Amino acid sequence: MTTSKKVNESATVFTEIVMPNDTNPMHNLMGGNLLKWMDIACGICASKHANRIAVTAAVDSVSFSRPLKIGDIVTISARMTRAFTSSMEIYVEVFKENFRSHEKVKCNEAYLTFVALDDDGRPVAVPQIAPESEEEERRYVSALRRRELRLILAGRMKPEEAKELKQIFISE
Amino acid sequence: MTTSKKVNESATVFTEIVMPNDTNPMHNLMGGNLLKWMDIACGICASKHANRIAVTAAVDSVSFSRPLKIGDIVTISARMTRAFTSSMEIYVEVFKENFRSHEKVKCNEAYLTFVALDDDGRPVAVPQIAPESEEEERRYVSALRRRELRLILAGRMKPEEAKELKQIFISE
Amino acid sequence: MTTSKKVNESATVFTEIVMPNDTNPMHNLMGGNLLKWMDIACGICASKHANRIAVTAAVDSVSFSRPLKIGDIVTISARMTRAFTSSMEIYVEVFKENFRSHEKVKCNEAYLTFVALDDDGRPVAVPQIAPESEEEERRYVSALRRRELRLILAGRMKPEEAKELKQIFISE
Amino acid sequence: MTTSKKVNESATVFTEIVMPNDTNPMHNLMGGNLLKWMDIACGICASKHANRIAVTAAVDSVSFSRPLKIGDIVTISARMTRAFTSSMEIYVEVFKENFRSHEKVKCNEAYLTFVALDDDGRPVAVPQIAPESEEEERRYVSALRRRELRLILAGRMKPEEAKELKQIFISE
Amino acid sequence: MTTSKKVNESATVFTEIVMPNDTNPMHNLMGGNLLKWMDIACGICASKHANRIAVTAAVDSVSFSRPLKIGDIVTISARMTRAFTSSMEIYVEVFKENFRSHEKVKCNEAYLTFVALDDDGRPVAVPQIAPESEEEERRYVSALRRRELRLILAGRMKPEEAKELKQIFISE
Amino acid sequence: MTTSKKVNESATVFTEIVMPNDTNPMHNLMGGNLLKWMDIACGICASKHANRIAVTAAVDSVSFSRPLKIGDIVTISARMTRAFTSSMEIYVEVFKENFRSHEKVKCNEAYLTFVALDDDGRPVAVPQIAPESEEEERRYVSALRRRELRLILAGRMKPEEAKELKQIFISE
Repeated sequence: MTTSKKVNESATVFTEIVMPNDTNPMHNLMGGNLLKWMDIACGICASKHANRIAVTAAVDSVSFSRPLKIGDIVTISARMTRAFTSSMEIYVEVFKENFRSHEKVKCNEAYLTFVALDDDGRPVAVPQIAPESEEEERRYVSALRRRELRLILAGRMKPEEAKELKQIFISE
Repeated sequence: MTTSKKVNESATVFTEIVMPNDTNPMHNLMGGNLLKWMDIACGICASKHANRIAVTAAVDSVSFSRPLKIGDIVTISARMTRAFTSSMEIYVEVFKENFRSHEKVKCNEAYLTFVALDDDGRPVAVPQIAPESEEEERRYVSALRRRELRLILAGRMKPEEAKELKQIFISE
Repeated sequence: MTTSKKVNESATVFTEIVMPNDTNPMHNLMGGNLLKWMDIACGICASKHANRIAVTAAVDSVSFSRPLKIGDIVTISARMTRAFTSSMEIYVEVFKENFRSHEKVKCNEAYLTFVALDDDGRPVAVPQIAPESEEEERRYVSALRRRELRLILAGRMKPEEAKELKQIFISE
Repeated sequence: MTTSKKVNESATVFTEIVMPNDTNPMHNLMGGNLLKWMDIACGICASKHANRIAVTAAVDSVSFSRPLKIGDIVTISARMTRAFTSSMEIYVEVFKENFRSHEKVKCNEAYLTFVALDDDGRPVAVPQIAPESEEEERRYVSALRRRELRLILAGRMKPEEAKELKQIFISE
Repeated sequence: MTTSKKVNESATVFTEIVMPNDTNPMHNLMGGNLLKWMDIACGICASKHANRIAVTAAVDSVSFSRPLKIGDIVTISARMTRAFTSSMEIYVEVFKENFRSHEKVKCNEAYLTFVALDDDGRPVAVPQIAPESEEEERRYVSALRRRELRLILAGRMKPEEAKELKQIFISE
Repeated sequence: MTTSKKVNESATVFTEIVMPNDTNPMHNLMGGNLLKWMDIACGICASKHANRIAVTAAVDSVSFSRPLKIGDIVTISARMTRAFTSSMEIYVEVFKENFRSHEKVKCNEAYLTFVALDDDGRPVAVPQIAPESEEEERRYVSALRRRELRLILAGRMKPEEAKELKQIFISE
């Protein structure tokens, strides 16, 4: 399990259509349903990378700006950014497409973290990520910074210890 | 709509039982389903506070540490922390209870932001929050800091402009 | 298992929003869906009281007078009234709330009976109820009468043996 | 709408298979799900008789004695017993069948009452029932007694006014 | 298992109401949902005939001409036509009924093939069919021809070997 | 609407995970659920090609040979083969992937036909298909033969008129 794998080996595309029961009284997709779909797409991606069951460990902050309507086609793309010992960060993008207008618009993006488990439910080591494109490299590097923020927000790291993150607030 | 309301006026308790279809192959509740339930509980809370349709604007980072099993009773408590012009921050806690052991354990917490809409779907002003208890006061104050982080993470505020947040990384 | 417990120890609040698929062509909640939610709320309450799996044994007659509409928030409150050897009677109330009007209206009420089962599926003794408030006392006493009616309607007691019930038709 | 119709013209058979999500942790069908299916079967039957939308007005007491298991085939038979001005009483029987044993066992029975509505949601007159078989005749006659009990239990008739019902407790 | 059974012994009627979530943006039942219901009805029919678990082996071509609308009552009738060693052909008809108009219209028909499995998941012999009516006899005979077409379309028989089928294209 | 479009412009990938409620008592995906997913994938593909609502007109015969298990990742690929006046033939392939073994196996394939509708529900002309690859060309040509078979099976063409199809049974 020490070998590394490429991002494309586990990249996952997930498609849904917004149905009446997924919407609020204004006929917009409820945010919670989108989160559920994003979680499923990332879970498939993480399982493919680890060849293991993978469970959600963290969902980074998500903002919702463009409403999705009944009948909209929702495409969710999930791609590994970086693997740590047993945890994996996944970058997920949400696109909506209206079959009439044919245009595809990006609606949301987020980072989710999953942990690979062995058959007894204990965390288990996963392959590392070997970034290929420039974008994959960039997300691979910035994953450290996001990890620090995650640990601080979960109360497991003191802000002053967050070396990577600190720089943003001071120098950037 | 200039009057203020109390936290208890919109506090919402939401109960679910973990069913087979909500779980992954290890019989644990999938993270995305919990997010969906948290979103529904907060949406009810926000609608009650605003007396308007309220839609999800942001979900702050959530971490998942304690697995929820088939048959577990999940209680979700959603309470307003602070209202801004048309947006509302809600604090949500997730508890699990096993009917055999009778013990109730806190599993997750998060902050979600909702926006109140008028009947044409435009943002509309909401009542302010008048905190009563010490805890309500504390969450009311810290809401400013979380809002800054949210704006930075959504790319709508520069880190150096985040006055409240900056202090955490420098002095705290 | 001979000790008694208080009503509040197992009191359960269950919240649902009426969604499109829950309704008939007039956009009203179908009666069967409400019965299902009442059954779930009571099942949670019974399981909490018994610390056991509890299964539905009887649903007393329910009448439906106020329609529930798409988007209505349904709050279901389930509270123990009395425990017999292995069976438990639960009083359930249904309230609807419209987020616009903010008013909470009682729609339905019913009594459901559950039986606690051990791990082999056999009925097992449950703690008794120690009523505290005046209302709890009143429901505790009248539970005997409802039990007689239930046994008669299920064909397991002859009407002339129903001592408690008989008085209603003669003297009340 | 003054003509009468036969029971067979609206008799409805409804079939379901017990699926994992319909069951409790002992793999038995939850009572609430069965009530939901009974309500749907009766609703179809009432709509067929009235040629109108029909909504649940009352569910008489139901007792659950035989557990239904995952994979069991549930057959629900709904038949009109009697129509009043705008309300209809329907007799519903539940059978379970296990495909291995091939035997069909009756599990539950109940009486549900539906009201026919016009397109504005107001109660509307329905055709009367012309009983044919001896059993249809018997249920047609006893419908009056059940109606009295329903009105008493809903608090809309005083027990001493229930002529039909009173006899059961005194002479039967 | 060498005995034969009658068509009526396993004939199955399955009823559904078209709900909002079953429909496309034109409020018509999506074809895939109807196929799912047809599969369930035939699966029950096959399990009853074989007294075994039965799984879908093939669905013959289905055409959809009459749209089904929200609120329509869908009745699906599944009847055995012929059994081969471990496989069973089932004829399924779909009717729609609108409760207002009271008329029942046939919408679709199809032939599905199921295979009976023993408890280890291996194909197992099933009883033969003894046709009674003229129509049952006709479908029993033509089952051979449909079976040939099925084998050709699945690439498991060469067209020139299809004796029954060949005649249609040459002489009929 | 007279221009032609490429197959890739509407190619659709649809992913699902097999959940407990999708399966039969042997924990295999029920055939009807797979058909439903295939129909959704093809419906999205057809809507993208036509920029219109598209409804299922026909599902060609499908055979099921490899069982799909709980937890399997199902990937469904839908691609246009040929457009006629207002109807479109789509080729759909189903793959299963087990996250442990990492292998992706083809399970099923089928041809579905959809019709594009205008806003009043009437058939409307769609762009033609311009095949690019050799495989696209091959499926484009053979679409005529499949169309004949479809018309014959739906009783709308006499076998002896099926020029394309006839050759298979005589010379091939």
